[in-house]
Amino acid sequence: MEFQFLGTSSGTPTKTRNVSGLALRSEGASHWSLIDCGEGTQHRILHTSLSLWNLRAIFITHMHGDHCYGLPGLLASAGMFNRTEQMYIVGPRPLEQFVRCIMETSELGLPYPIEFVAVEHLGKTDVLPDLEVHITALSHRVPSYAYSFTERTVEHKVDVAKLNDEGIPPGPIWGQIQQGDDVMLPDGRILNARNYLLPPRKRRKTIVGGDNDTPELLAVEARTADVLIHEATYTDDILHKMGPWPQHSSAKMVAQFANNAGIRNLVLTHFSPRYQEQAESPSIADIEAEARAAYTGKLFLANDFERYVLDRAGNLAKAS
Amino acid sequence: MEFQFLGTSSGTPTKTRNVSGLALRSEGASHWSLIDCGEGTQHRILHTSLSLWNLRAIFITHMHGDHCYGLPGLLASAGMFNRTEQMYIVGPRPLEQFVRCIMETSELGLPYPIEFVAVEHLGKTDVLPDLEVHITALSHRVPSYAYSFTERTVEHKVDVAKLNDEGIPPGPIWGQIQQGDDVMLPDGRILNARNYLLPPRKRRKTIVGGDNDTPELLAVEARTADVLIHEATYTDDILHKMGPWPQHSSAKMVAQFANNAGIRNLVLTHFSPRYQEQAESPSIADIEAEARAAYTGKLFLANDFERYVLDRAGNLAKAS
Repeated sequence: MEFQFLGTSSGTPTKTRNVSGLALRSEGASHWSLIDCGEGTQHRILHTSLSLWNLRAIFITHMHGDHCYGLPGLLASAGMFNRTEQMYIVGPRPLEQFVRCIMETSELGLPYPIEFVAVEHLGKTDVLPDLEVHITALSHRVPSYAYSFTERTVEHKVDVAKLNDEGIPPGPIWGQIQQGDDVMLPDGRILNARNYLLPPRKRRKTIVGGDNDTPELLAVEARTADVLIHEATYTDDILHKMGPWPQHSSAKMVAQFANNAGIRNLVLTHFSPRYQEQAESPSIADIEAEARAAYTGKLFLANDFERYVLDRAGNLAKAS
Repeated sequence: MEFQFLGTSSGTPTKTRNVSGLALRSEGASHWSLIDCGEGTQHRILHTSLSLWNLRAIFITHMHGDHCYGLPGLLASAGMFNRTEQMYIVGPRPLEQFVRCIMETSELGLPYPIEFVAVEHLGKTDVLPDLEVHITALSHRVPSYAYSFTERTVEHKVDVAKLNDEGIPPGPIWGQIQQGDDVMLPDGRILNARNYLLPPRKRRKTIVGGDNDTPELLAVEARTADVLIHEATYTDDILHKMGPWPQHSSAKMVAQFANNAGIRNLVLTHFSPRYQEQAESPSIADIEAEARAAYTGKLFLANDFERYVLDRAGNLAKAS
């Protein structure tokens, strides 16, 4: 399971960070998904190995412009590349009207069909063949959602010790068992595959949150998650100065929640442009320090173009 | 009069060229105008000296996405910067519905008013204090327009020879005459300012075309223009291979027109992404060679971020 950040700024782009966009893919899969599509996401994609040909689904967390204004241009470009495969677009209910109205007023025709899926109906549709997707309603100025992506299946591992104990030598038989197939031995014995497989590992799960001022809303989803990707728009002091209106989270709020929930990997993103990279203060380092003080797990602050890999043991690392 | 290209690609962005956007400003003016606003225009602006605070008007040539999909994000960012001054948005009639529908579905509120001006009503509105703006209908798949920008006024120049002949010494009196004020001399004589001013120079004029397959539609406007900025999406061979559907111009078509019309400066832009910078062929060099063969004036092929200055004598040059 791997993901790549295409934008990590909140509200407006900066010289180094674009507005929200995140590419997600199972390792080895040709298709990929996009979570949020701020303006300029297609420009970012040009500088990655991702292709609009293989983009299967776009998930929009909420209808604010910094999360969806890149959608029409990306759809148009996919059309100009003569894509013909259906594209899923998943999001809050106004998203379909947003896209249709733009297509109509700008006379945009597409050579591929779009299947709109309102978040409420996501449970009825198998959007991705390899990942289950669940939503959690968050708290923001407009309806906002987190998407949880969980592996549908995990690979089987044969019980090497048991097979050796029973004198079954490595070879094609082991392979059949690993596929989950029962096997008849030359002596007529039948091996029931499930008796020779180790208990399956935990299915990997990543939560990608939309804008949200109440991380605790993710408590249930977090119980089985390996990774939480969540906005940390402000540090706590500036969040309180701003007052309740923006309805965002501070680094401290998210870090405390993730720590209490026992999530092993936390990736913060969606930083207010006031936090500069190299500045004295406020700087991105302030956000990091605040989160580190409250969270003992593996913490990352996302940068544009960074690629992360979640291995089968649930360890998250930046890809080189 | 100066302008800066924010995007010079047609249809989709490339790694080096964004989709259409052009900043225009009278020298010394604090306010500026934007002609077309493809996706990512606000990102380009971040890397210039332009500010959304001083953007007075946006002119959209036609409703195709590569000319207007950057508008909602730019408006939103101007709002986040707490702009309060009114913004003019000029364009084809569906533009207002496009913007309003996006604002509604994405719950975008702006702290400044927008004044929509449909191109048909442009003559009734003084959008810019320093430039007259006229439209010319072009020929494309959707209604498309050229905007001609002409200086409203030119500076006065005193007739130095005549003032010297009449024994009027340089000093404050010359200044008053240059301002167009009549002057009473100490001896009671009254100088009528207009008798001591040289004939005014030609008012500078720049035409910025939208997508168009018939450059000759600009013949009347071209008679008094110093600069034509026009699409040259393809070379002539590829234009003919594509057939009539895209309704674009080739470099040859525009160059021949500009040559026949006697326009002194021609700037080509809006190149199909198939023309690469360094490639063997098709390359941007092919477009340039084709245009040079048909045009004897001063020819430029625009690149993103290039800034051009049109001096008072009607000479166009790239700014360093």
